[in-house]
Amino acid sequence: MRGKATATAPANIALVKYWGAHDLSSGIPLNASISMTLSRCVSTCTVEARTGDAAGGAAREESNEVYVVAPGEHWPAPGEGRAQGELRPAPDAFARRVLDHLERLRRWAGADCSFRVATHNSFPSGAGLASSASGFAALTLATVGALGAEVTAEELSILARRSGSGSAARSVLGGYVELPGGPVPDDVYARQLAEPGHWDLRDVIAIVAAEPKAVSSLEGHARAPSSPYFRERLACLADRLTVVREALARRDFDLLGPAVEEEAVDLHLIAMSSSPPIFYWRPGTLEVLEAVRRLRTEGVKAYFTIDAGPNVHVICPPDAEETVASRLGALGSVREIIRDRVGPGPELIEEHLL
Amino acid sequence: MRGKATATAPANIALVKYWGAHDLSSGIPLNASISMTLSRCVSTCTVEARTGDAAGGAAREESNEVYVVAPGEHWPAPGEGRAQGELRPAPDAFARRVLDHLERLRRWAGADCSFRVATHNSFPSGAGLASSASGFAALTLATVGALGAEVTAEELSILARRSGSGSAARSVLGGYVELPGGPVPDDVYARQLAEPGHWDLRDVIAIVAAEPKAVSSLEGHARAPSSPYFRERLACLADRLTVVREALARRDFDLLGPAVEEEAVDLHLIAMSSSPPIFYWRPGTLEVLEAVRRLRTEGVKAYFTIDAGPNVHVICPPDAEETVASRLGALGSVREIIRDRVGPGPELIEEHLL
Repeated sequence: MRGKATATAPANIALVKYWGAHDLSSGIPLNASISMTLSRCVSTCTVEARTGDAAGGAAREESNEVYVVAPGEHWPAPGEGRAQGELRPAPDAFARRVLDHLERLRRWAGADCSFRVATHNSFPSGAGLASSASGFAALTLATVGALGAEVTAEELSILARRSGSGSAARSVLGGYVELPGGPVPDDVYARQLAEPGHWDLRDVIAIVAAEPKAVSSLEGHARAPSSPYFRERLACLADRLTVVREALARRDFDLLGPAVEEEAVDLHLIAMSSSPPIFYWRPGTLEVLEAVRRLRTEGVKAYFTIDAGPNVHVICPPDAEETVASRLGALGSVREIIRDRVGPGPELIEEHLL
Repeated sequence: MRGKATATAPANIALVKYWGAHDLSSGIPLNASISMTLSRCVSTCTVEARTGDAAGGAAREESNEVYVVAPGEHWPAPGEGRAQGELRPAPDAFARRVLDHLERLRRWAGADCSFRVATHNSFPSGAGLASSASGFAALTLATVGALGAEVTAEELSILARRSGSGSAARSVLGGYVELPGGPVPDDVYARQLAEPGHWDLRDVIAIVAAEPKAVSSLEGHARAPSSPYFRERLACLADRLTVVREALARRDFDLLGPAVEEEAVDLHLIAMSSSPPIFYWRPGTLEVLEAVRRLRTEGVKAYFTIDAGPNVHVICPPDAEETVASRLGALGSVREIIRDRVGPGPELIEEHLL
């Protein structure tokens, strides 16, 4: 018997970041985080669950197959047509994480099956654009669909989180989303703070380096407590979370922006003062930051944030997007601009990759 | 009656930085600092003290004259010949600080005189290369000389410090120097930890921006306590000072280097998390940092430090200097390389600028 499902799930950009874990392997953060779910940075994942053709255990694992749709191909937005591209075996490290998560979901569902999986990102992977968030959210939703299971959004968020990607737990909802910190695992699922229609914010993403970063987010989380400043960061976060929640509720951009920039700098201060230090910023990162500050002196409303990578997300209202995108696109170190915006979250679709 | 004296004083590169003050106006730091006095980054200052031609007070101040030898001219090392260059009236803000310090020294000496002053830096001013350290150390020594006063090194250090430039207090001695933190003013004078001959370290300075920085060190000191991480920085410093003292005493480069880099990053973390934040790093700063880390993976012994500015000092043993200088000089964002080294400190010379 076969079940097959395809899900799309968006990346999200954290306005208050998850950095440092109670339990890294099951994505239980030390602190609450708040994000904006995106629209165009999307992972698509098809999962086919095959029962009856495997003897369980090692034999079952051996018959699992994980593919990626070759990067560089365009994946159109849902409804705009099919993704084009060649299926290739996934790189080992990525395939390992996917297989671990599939095994987790199989046990959760009590199913006896093997899987064929294909995934595709509409944006560069591993460069601090939350590809693990969208990827594991899509994988989780598609697997649940292929297994014919029914889940609430809360359960889906917890299942996605257990992949080890805490931010995947946020990508199961659209709009503005909060994920509480631990330590209680059953509490750590995403809550929607506001629907996407509540506030139309844009995210102009300046790509200054598209290759995967040298130090993974997982490694960054693990090193965070070695920074002498980490405890103080956690202490400051309660106030910052309050400010960001309030700014979102009131649609107050002047309140939101500075808090978001401070938070982004803070994450990187912790990384740079961890032991050994982690430098995610590249020269181009600072070129973009300088340009954003210059834009503000000219009256353009725009504030930056940076996940664990070198690329810069510039949050702005719709009327600033064009100016921000064209100014940043003209910088020498910016390779590509992705214009994204708040979006509605994941969905099951009929256009399978397998 | 006229007295005239000319002094040269070197810049210094702080291995442990002064950042944050008990008393900003008289250069009393919150924390102890340790520096290496340089050789080639030198300020030269001629002071002429004229008595009998002024009526005191406002009239005396009016007859003071402050010149700079036009920048861009080469000032040869002491003994290599005269500086060439045109005398120009000093820029207002700089002249104001010089005149304030001259007035302070005049009162200290109990003299009734006016001054003519000319200064020259052998390196770019105001770009985080400690031009105020060398400048005020040279000004202090030349003024004391012009006034015919006799001072100990301790007194000279305190007088230089009272210019408001705490790092000037370190530039009155050669070799490796420690300046204690406050709060007791009479204790805050430089002590020599080791003679220059104790350890021949080099400082390859990569200039990525030669224009004066947007936020002065004085303003940076003032904002430092607004960083939520400032208190923790001060708490960490006792251990770091011990490590740096020990590394200097034992000439242990592998112990010194990592501590010096951590310290440099820390200063900038405090600046970037101050309110409002200060970003001294430029894109080129990070390009140099990346190159230094790459050099180390190739076995080249080199560690960076960065004062309050965008330029990078790379500390290395003599046998690494050539490799470091040529590699950094080839970077796209490096405008100039200054090859400096530990040096003997200030001196009075006979080649006057006036």
